[in-house]
Amino acid sequence: MERTQVGIVGAGPAGLLLAHLLHLRGIESVVLEARSRTYIESRLRAGVLEQGTVDVLTETGLGERMHRQGLVHEGVFLRFDGRTHRIDFRELTGKGITVYGQHEVVRDLVAARLAYDGPLRFEVEDVRVEDLDTDRPRIRYREHGASQETELACDVIAGCDGFHGVCRAAIPERALRCFDREFPFAWLGILAETPPSSRELIYAHHERGFALLSMRSPTVSRLYLQCAPNESLDAWSDDRIWSELAARLATRDGFVLNDGPILQKGITPMRAFVCETMRHGRLFLAGDAAHIVPPTGAKGMNLAVADVRWLAEAVEAFYRRGDESLLEQYHERCLRRVWKAERFSSWMTSTFHRGPISTDFDVRIQLAELDYLTSSVAAQRSLAENYAGLPFQ
Amino acid sequence: MERTQVGIVGAGPAGLLLAHLLHLRGIESVVLEARSRTYIESRLRAGVLEQGTVDVLTETGLGERMHRQGLVHEGVFLRFDGRTHRIDFRELTGKGITVYGQHEVVRDLVAARLAYDGPLRFEVEDVRVEDLDTDRPRIRYREHGASQETELACDVIAGCDGFHGVCRAAIPERALRCFDREFPFAWLGILAETPPSSRELIYAHHERGFALLSMRSPTVSRLYLQCAPNESLDAWSDDRIWSELAARLATRDGFVLNDGPILQKGITPMRAFVCETMRHGRLFLAGDAAHIVPPTGAKGMNLAVADVRWLAEAVEAFYRRGDESLLEQYHERCLRRVWKAERFSSWMTSTFHRGPISTDFDVRIQLAELDYLTSSVAAQRSLAENYAGLPFQ
Repeated sequence: MERTQVGIVGAGPAGLLLAHLLHLRGIESVVLEARSRTYIESRLRAGVLEQGTVDVLTETGLGERMHRQGLVHEGVFLRFDGRTHRIDFRELTGKGITVYGQHEVVRDLVAARLAYDGPLRFEVEDVRVEDLDTDRPRIRYREHGASQETELACDVIAGCDGFHGVCRAAIPERALRCFDREFPFAWLGILAETPPSSRELIYAHHERGFALLSMRSPTVSRLYLQCAPNESLDAWSDDRIWSELAARLATRDGFVLNDGPILQKGITPMRAFVCETMRHGRLFLAGDAAHIVPPTGAKGMNLAVADVRWLAEAVEAFYRRGDESLLEQYHERCLRRVWKAERFSSWMTSTFHRGPISTDFDVRIQLAELDYLTSSVAAQRSLAENYAGLPFQ
Repeated sequence: MERTQVGIVGAGPAGLLLAHLLHLRGIESVVLEARSRTYIESRLRAGVLEQGTVDVLTETGLGERMHRQGLVHEGVFLRFDGRTHRIDFRELTGKGITVYGQHEVVRDLVAARLAYDGPLRFEVEDVRVEDLDTDRPRIRYREHGASQETELACDVIAGCDGFHGVCRAAIPERALRCFDREFPFAWLGILAETPPSSRELIYAHHERGFALLSMRSPTVSRLYLQCAPNESLDAWSDDRIWSELAARLATRDGFVLNDGPILQKGITPMRAFVCETMRHGRLFLAGDAAHIVPPTGAKGMNLAVADVRWLAEAVEAFYRRGDESLLEQYHERCLRRVWKAERFSSWMTSTFHRGPISTDFDVRIQLAELDYLTSSVAAQRSLAENYAGLPFQ
């Protein structure tokens, strides 16, 4: 039987950052990942880092490439009724955001982990978590290609294996309390080889549906279109995508959208999910394993970072002082932030999207929301403090 | 044929204040009201005046009794999860609100009108507005008890006759553009002879539904309970009302609700309605004739005051300088404010009420909204500036 202090299931941003934060505190861990290194280092996900996320990565020595390649934005554009308004995050909150792909964060974390030979096993199979109610929980799995099972005894297990992972599923049904909302639309996202048509993100309200102009680098654009949840990519030729984006992003003063070769397309479902059970015995859930936000507020990865920041603190208190109180408070501490992010993401989503049963009244309320927002410093500050990131508490 | 400059249909706050503002500008008007003086001076309606409403009444010489009897509040209490948080309007916006019943405002306006012998006819019958497309629109009506019709020729007609009035109905269907939302609940309101249990209003979120503690004077309380839209008052004994209010207003630290004789009970429907056609030829709609807000944001009478403030300005420009541009802009000027008030009222309503199809997720989002609100100065300022009243523009 293998032995470690903290067994971490999943090598996404949550699992890898947790391993890193524990390592800096002298706590051992083993990270197990079902996918390959290539897969996790290239899968396209979120790309907006809150100021607090940037700070955590910087303070823990992970900021070098992020500061070199990431794009610092001081605000965001809201476009509606053919007009564009900027929300100035820096002026309103003193904070900015950094556009840097989640897979880039993952690359930096993998590199850091391997640099100090921290255990990180890819393509493991048949992962199961057991004995969660005891003080010696175990993870069973098979190394890639191995016929024999490995048993890993831990003090604590961190379930960082995403929404479809095995960790949440290992919690008995009776101990789970979950909340969810399905949105009646999805996002069609593209990655395109063309310079971004705007220096900062544009969130566009349009009668044809929401559109978002984002970017990955000075030469690569990332754009999204609201579509039906069951939309087929086959129905969307490159031409149709560009002309729909141009229509939804149009302004009265003739905004020009740069087009170019589309490198990748995909449909992102819109779902909100919160599992209020973030702890079961010695198993702690973090990131998407416990909660999903619709992508509109750009909160997903940032919430994962906040979770593991607290979890690392709690695990440290446990080892240093035998103090389990922070582990006991983990749940509550995370959930206040999670629900605020769910609130903000729901608000952004409902302000910009047109649902299949939206009435004309609803659309007028959306426009009033945007009109109010762009005429009120207080409302802008509220948006800005949520978008750039509420303080850790 | 009788002749006046401005014919005003309806002697609610909108019609009476318009007549007063026109009088101060030397413009004649005739006010026609279908109900009796006693009726309009005693019908219980809204009771919260924005700072701007108080200022208009004060500046135009109507403030004497209001300043003597009205209760100035500097904030409001939000209660949820058994805890109470105060939103300090004065500190956040420099403004306050004044609790003073709408019928008291109406009394002051009637007294002012009669003091200078301004034409104000009660219990008129069969009111019709005609020739709206001409520059000599007419109102036909019968004086109370008269068999013969009176014809009143005007330059401008103001439709201040409420949601069910004849003025909006006189606009051809093809020229009307209306928006509405029905809410799946109503308010059961009581007036009770008991000192208010709180010095300022309490808006309470509770799993049993919304409750509002308000007041009319230091000895008279006004309280509301969310109920079904088709609720029958027969099902609500005084005892049941008090115990339901006590349950919804309960706190962890033992809030005590004063009860006492119930003087009046009623059901208030919750409806949002906006008629974007506020002008048709020489007919101008103001107040409830053009828009209804759910009562949660206390905006109804305040919107009526904003409408007629602008209408009086526009009518003055028309007579002074032959300038119709303000009359042409009336519509647009009002609607921006109206839609912002609809937005705020919808937000207050959806944050505090539990609908028949609310999910547990929805309730968690409400609580997150309230948790965020009570932890963010920006969010509190946004609530406060809307509640105490956005600036006239």
